[in-house]
Amino acid sequence: MSLLFLSTTDSPDPWVEEFRRQMPELDLRVWPETGDPHDIRYALVWKPPPGELRRLPALEVMFSLGAGVDALLGDPELPDLPLVRMVEHGLTEGMAEYVALQALYWHRNMHAYLASQRGGVWQPLPERLARERRVGILGLGELGSAAARTLAGLGFDAAGWSRTQRQLPGIACLHGRDGLDTLLARSEILVCLLPLTPETRGILDARTFSRLPRGAVVINAARGAHVVDADLLEALASGRLAGASLDVFTREPLPPDHPFWSHPAIVVTPHAAAPTHARTATASVVEQIRRHRAGLPLTNLVDRSRGY
Amino acid sequence: MSLLFLSTTDSPDPWVEEFRRQMPELDLRVWPETGDPHDIRYALVWKPPPGELRRLPALEVMFSLGAGVDALLGDPELPDLPLVRMVEHGLTEGMAEYVALQALYWHRNMHAYLASQRGGVWQPLPERLARERRVGILGLGELGSAAARTLAGLGFDAAGWSRTQRQLPGIACLHGRDGLDTLLARSEILVCLLPLTPETRGILDARTFSRLPRGAVVINAARGAHVVDADLLEALASGRLAGASLDVFTREPLPPDHPFWSHPAIVVTPHAAAPTHARTATASVVEQIRRHRAGLPLTNLVDRSRGY
Repeated sequence: MSLLFLSTTDSPDPWVEEFRRQMPELDLRVWPETGDPHDIRYALVWKPPPGELRRLPALEVMFSLGAGVDALLGDPELPDLPLVRMVEHGLTEGMAEYVALQALYWHRNMHAYLASQRGGVWQPLPERLARERRVGILGLGELGSAAARTLAGLGFDAAGWSRTQRQLPGIACLHGRDGLDTLLARSEILVCLLPLTPETRGILDARTFSRLPRGAVVINAARGAHVVDADLLEALASGRLAGASLDVFTREPLPPDHPFWSHPAIVVTPHAAAPTHARTATASVVEQIRRHRAGLPLTNLVDRSRGY
Repeated sequence: MSLLFLSTTDSPDPWVEEFRRQMPELDLRVWPETGDPHDIRYALVWKPPPGELRRLPALEVMFSLGAGVDALLGDPELPDLPLVRMVEHGLTEGMAEYVALQALYWHRNMHAYLASQRGGVWQPLPERLARERRVGILGLGELGSAAARTLAGLGFDAAGWSRTQRQLPGIACLHGRDGLDTLLARSEILVCLLPLTPETRGILDARTFSRLPRGAVVINAARGAHVVDADLLEALASGRLAGASLDVFTREPLPPDHPFWSHPAIVVTPHAAAPTHARTATASVVEQIRRHRAGLPLTNLVDRSRGY
């Protein structure tokens, strides 16, 4: 029984170490040293070369190394096998921390204070309490619901929106097209943690921005293609938006000449919001493999019809 | 029955509005329009001119407008009357938010990412989880214990230190001189929320920094005089400290030529961590006045022998 680690961007070293420690009986292969492809039952993958997984005739299950599976599903040659998305508490906690940081950063005027500091200016600003600040979260899956809980725990007046109705204690949960407009109208800080699907592509556009309260802030830690870059720049120029924290971009790394880099109201982080942590992610994959060997159903399977 | 609002730095407007709304029967005077000083039973004060409170012969209770009473106690002409420090949930929550923001800011490499952005550099850094980050809080009074709870709620591995033994659920509480060294040795992020007393003045000095793990970060939101500025600069230069977030300074506003302004590893905020919120603070004062009129004991009284 072999697992193939296949990533075109991640170093295999921490994964090799963790699998050796957590599942020593597993025969771990590291792409491109695949060995006999007939041995490979499982593949843990990130951005595989198109068609590469087709070359594994005994493959039974594909595991995504990251939470988003849009890149994998965009591969027309992806085998028609169960695809498990990455759900592991390291990634989830990291995302909740990142969202909390960015929400507090704008809520507590840090962007303005850092600018004042560069100018040597002592300028206290009116401060509000988190309980007086309304935050809206787009997407209430594993990551969105964790972020909502953390924001509510900090005192923020948090609400969330998802495609279908969700229930989260202490958080107003909206859904559907009407629910989206209701959420936008109340969101002084808007957080995007949606999966990237044909329905959500470009959701952060002029229409969405126009429904936010004037001076709102946008935090995008989902996928770059959720944002219409030109609409975001226009909304900042008009004052509709006061700022944005962006961790993801249509092209990554963000090209050197992209206007986001030097925009005074945009914070750019290098897709660092929620790295998959090898230790906790390996534990998650190991548990799934054990379930599968025992004939139990896999969890966190991707539904290809809905795209996540 | 009259209350005198006496601040040499705060606008009285929001306070006048809140007292009218919350205690319409109160005769509120705004210094320097004191009227007949024999009417004044209560004074709500911030940085009064020395000797000014001596001129109120019927004064019964003094309320501090801020959490720290070091400036008031430093006035040799302060009347020997009960002094109530400001405990109100707006101030407490604001401080907990500020500490959470600054801890997450350094924990999640925001300072480095903002520097990378200014240079147009895409440079993801290794990220750890809050549960893997040890934070130490100096001071476990109203503000310190609230900050500790919030940090623990975000997942940080939080411990605290106070002069005398405290108990906080889920937080390791240390005390005394030995406890201080134990706390310092484990604090990758050190938060100062101590009252300023002869014992704590200059506590953030070379000795303290030398006991922190190499590359630690210091957050000071208490009083500027807790920090020995030259020692902080030296600890940053040597790499003992990786950064500092400072909200308070020996002289405020921070003088234009002070090296903190332009230091690449220091965040300066303009004493904005925990403003007293007029609405919630008025509610706190009103409750105390009602207690006092009813013959009940005042709460949050300053013990002048210990200095807070």
